[in-house]
Amino acid sequence: MNRREALKIGSAALLSSAASGIQAAESKSANVERWDIFEENFPGPGGGNPFLDIWIRAVFRKGNREVWVDGFYDGNGVYKIRFMPDELGGWKFETDSNAPEMKGKKGLLQCTPPKSGNHGPVGVRDSYHFGYADGTPYFPFGTTCYAWIHQTDELQKQTLESLRSGPFNKIRMCIFPKWYQYNHGIPPRFPFPRVNETNDYNHFNPEFFYHIETRLAELRAMNIEADLILFHPYDNWGFQEMPAEVDDRYLKYVIARFAAYRNVWWSLANEYDLMRKKTNEDWDRYARIVTETDPYSHLRSIHYSHAPYDYSRSWCTHAGVQDYAFEKAPQWKKDWRKPVIFDECMYEGNINSRWGNISGEEMTRRFWLCTVAGAYGGHGETYVRGDEIENDKAILWWSHGGVLKGTSPQRIAFLRKLLDEIGAEGGDRIGLEAVEPEYYLGAKRNSNQALLWYFDFHQPSYYDFPLPESVNFKAECVDPWGMTTKPLEGLFSGKSRIKLPGKPYQAIIFQKVWLHSGRDEEAPKS
Amino acid sequence: MNRREALKIGSAALLSSAASGIQAAESKSANVERWDIFEENFPGPGGGNPFLDIWIRAVFRKGNREVWVDGFYDGNGVYKIRFMPDELGGWKFETDSNAPEMKGKKGLLQCTPPKSGNHGPVGVRDSYHFGYADGTPYFPFGTTCYAWIHQTDELQKQTLESLRSGPFNKIRMCIFPKWYQYNHGIPPRFPFPRVNETNDYNHFNPEFFYHIETRLAELRAMNIEADLILFHPYDNWGFQEMPAEVDDRYLKYVIARFAAYRNVWWSLANEYDLMRKKTNEDWDRYARIVTETDPYSHLRSIHYSHAPYDYSRSWCTHAGVQDYAFEKAPQWKKDWRKPVIFDECMYEGNINSRWGNISGEEMTRRFWLCTVAGAYGGHGETYVRGDEIENDKAILWWSHGGVLKGTSPQRIAFLRKLLDEIGAEGGDRIGLEAVEPEYYLGAKRNSNQALLWYFDFHQPSYYDFPLPESVNFKAECVDPWGMTTKPLEGLFSGKSRIKLPGKPYQAIIFQKVWLHSGRDEEAPKS
Repeated sequence: MNRREALKIGSAALLSSAASGIQAAESKSANVERWDIFEENFPGPGGGNPFLDIWIRAVFRKGNREVWVDGFYDGNGVYKIRFMPDELGGWKFETDSNAPEMKGKKGLLQCTPPKSGNHGPVGVRDSYHFGYADGTPYFPFGTTCYAWIHQTDELQKQTLESLRSGPFNKIRMCIFPKWYQYNHGIPPRFPFPRVNETNDYNHFNPEFFYHIETRLAELRAMNIEADLILFHPYDNWGFQEMPAEVDDRYLKYVIARFAAYRNVWWSLANEYDLMRKKTNEDWDRYARIVTETDPYSHLRSIHYSHAPYDYSRSWCTHAGVQDYAFEKAPQWKKDWRKPVIFDECMYEGNINSRWGNISGEEMTRRFWLCTVAGAYGGHGETYVRGDEIENDKAILWWSHGGVLKGTSPQRIAFLRKLLDEIGAEGGDRIGLEAVEPEYYLGAKRNSNQALLWYFDFHQPSYYDFPLPESVNFKAECVDPWGMTTKPLEGLFSGKSRIKLPGKPYQAIIFQKVWLHSGRDEEAPKS
Repeated sequence: MNRREALKIGSAALLSSAASGIQAAESKSANVERWDIFEENFPGPGGGNPFLDIWIRAVFRKGNREVWVDGFYDGNGVYKIRFMPDELGGWKFETDSNAPEMKGKKGLLQCTPPKSGNHGPVGVRDSYHFGYADGTPYFPFGTTCYAWIHQTDELQKQTLESLRSGPFNKIRMCIFPKWYQYNHGIPPRFPFPRVNETNDYNHFNPEFFYHIETRLAELRAMNIEADLILFHPYDNWGFQEMPAEVDDRYLKYVIARFAAYRNVWWSLANEYDLMRKKTNEDWDRYARIVTETDPYSHLRSIHYSHAPYDYSRSWCTHAGVQDYAFEKAPQWKKDWRKPVIFDECMYEGNINSRWGNISGEEMTRRFWLCTVAGAYGGHGETYVRGDEIENDKAILWWSHGGVLKGTSPQRIAFLRKLLDEIGAEGGDRIGLEAVEPEYYLGAKRNSNQALLWYFDFHQPSYYDFPLPESVNFKAECVDPWGMTTKPLEGLFSGKSRIKLPGKPYQAIIFQKVWLHSGRDEEAPKS
């Protein structure tokens, strides 16, 4: 299919490609940036029910690699195949379908080097941490806006602006709309056609999914990972209790459409244990479908309310816990052999609900506690104005997005910058492990290049830091709330007694001192 | 023995009686205030080894009650019997001894009404709480000065002054001297005669115990309970690894001397699990000796470091935990059927050690968390000045006593006053049970007369309080750190939405409104 053929296809589909930043196949050989999306449209049967009756897939080949991807029906008689190439050079593809006119279609694509800012998808690195496919470190600083894509266009634009200037590089967001306190509006789009308030589960609404794709592309352009929540219990329209075959079809449709976005993560559910109609077998099946169907093995997890999930299970790539026992993370990492994200550790705000009214100081503290526990924090915000309480119309970042009002985001930005600065030096990322779990929480970087102590509510006037011998460190005293750093005089090696500010919530960062030659400076014998 | 006979006894023994506030027996019938000490001296054998060879005891009879108490040798040929009468009226006593001259001695004492301020010993009340024997409520507000009685006289006097003006009504203190960081001095007295740095375990040093008695009497005069720690591991002189028969003799000697002080509690040990030479069987034996030998059944517990003790065991009257999981207290109370005291929940201070450097804010918070968990907090203080660190000579309240320097004591005083005010109204004490353990911590008084919410790091702008129906409450907003209370307008009944300050660490107290007739005001139907 060439450009001219593509033009014959309905305008909705074309809009989709343009707005989603997808590089449509130009003639037989398209150029596609590594980890961007190659998309090919195929005219096919428009009659009957294409969603149920017709399937199309394609295999992409390079050398002796074969990657199979499922296509999907996008309405208006158009079927699509999307592919995210991860290897530079020429790829061949060939379609298969039960519709003769879409079977055996062949083509070429040329995978070109990624442009600046495109680091590829995020994966697990060093067992407990994350990194981009191109080797760039990735330290999750997540936030939560469950239903931001189901708000007005104006509000969504505002959310994107807030994200652009904010500290976050990951966002938890639901595919299905949300019905919950302060969330009792009618969403502008539904995933299925609705007639007389009934979902037509035999069809999808492509426009619903296309809308999400535009948002995924916008997040991708900002290097924000989209932690997509596939199911959730806060529902008013039946999506939490669909028949099993609809669940499965929905998952496959979502994967066929979204998986080529490099910034997608899969979260099977938010608070899965509150979805009373689902059984453990259902969750196992969803996990299997996502694992087997996603050609790129995007990150996968699940989020609970009360019943901790067994994150040692092989399908999970990381843990996404709702917990506040940050000090347990080092043990959990050992138990599960995976990174731990505290993706919900309460929200900064002032609403009635206990989970939605911690102070900005406490949220800041929790990010530091997560960090020194070798885990990752998750932000959210639930501030309501007095006049908004009674009318149930408040715009809360946690669900609607909008504007950040809290005091923690700038402190989270400060922490992120601090960790970036340490991580950037060695080209490797902070590898956080608990130091002295019986004592202060500590975090150390791989090979002891950097060490971080956070003193929480402790306020020692001095502390004997058990630094490694034979390494010289420089040190900075950090005030996480005041957002200041103050270098300490001298170099430190081995057990080092250091005078501290004697006030709570302070931190000390040690960084290995490198000679300009690139070799370690020898530690003085003491 | 009459007054003239008593005068013949060595001056040390007489000094003891006078300084300890003991009411010596005057002629055959002495008047003794209820819960004060009746003491009778008996001249007996001074040769050989009275500590090992001679025993004396007495039975005190009133109506058909018999109370046996052990006597003790006080040196200089004098043996003593002490008795704390708990019932008004006439008591008869008769001695028994293996020394013929001390056998069959008889006498009378008249137990007179207690003077103002003497409420008797503290016992468990309503399963989970405490009260004085005369019915006055007792809400423990404890502090810790492990080794204050082993300091200079001047420092001990300063400690007593600090206690007099401070908020505490209980003090944890060791009988044996202490050897530990910042505690490397030589104590002025030892419990056993020491020759060539070796303890003579066949003798006690009465002066050591007499000194403690003067302190017990001074604490008693201030209504401060002495939580006496019988063993501890921070030792440089062998007291943590005495032979079993010396341990047992020591316990009996201590009980014979101290049990008549109404303000004594027995703590078998501080951090018992760090005393590596002791077995579980040893601890069981100590518990049995204390339980069987103390005629008054003073409060009994034990304190651990890492290994939680099984406080359900029948010999313990209450739990004295070293833990920070305050929210677990309601469950522990159910499990153990006993009051829970967090007698060590870290100390306000600034030393190197993690347990000794929490902020005053955090210590204040912990007292509130204990309170709303229906448990009781324990204070301690470890502030060191920069110039004191290197010379190991600092005076830290936690061990030496002296002057309180922290910011939490005045806030603890504020909390104590607040609870006193609520408790005083109904004549009964706050009976604290967790309300809504899944939500905010709450504490309620017996019969719902008062309810307390503490919001910790939560900062709701409003909250729907689930108050009981058919009861009217007045409410106050409390700032535990600012030490202010602000009455809220109106009365509240049933589910009540109340606007809150929207800042963390605030509390609300509800008090039932009583009509002047003494009957409950009827709640309005809403």
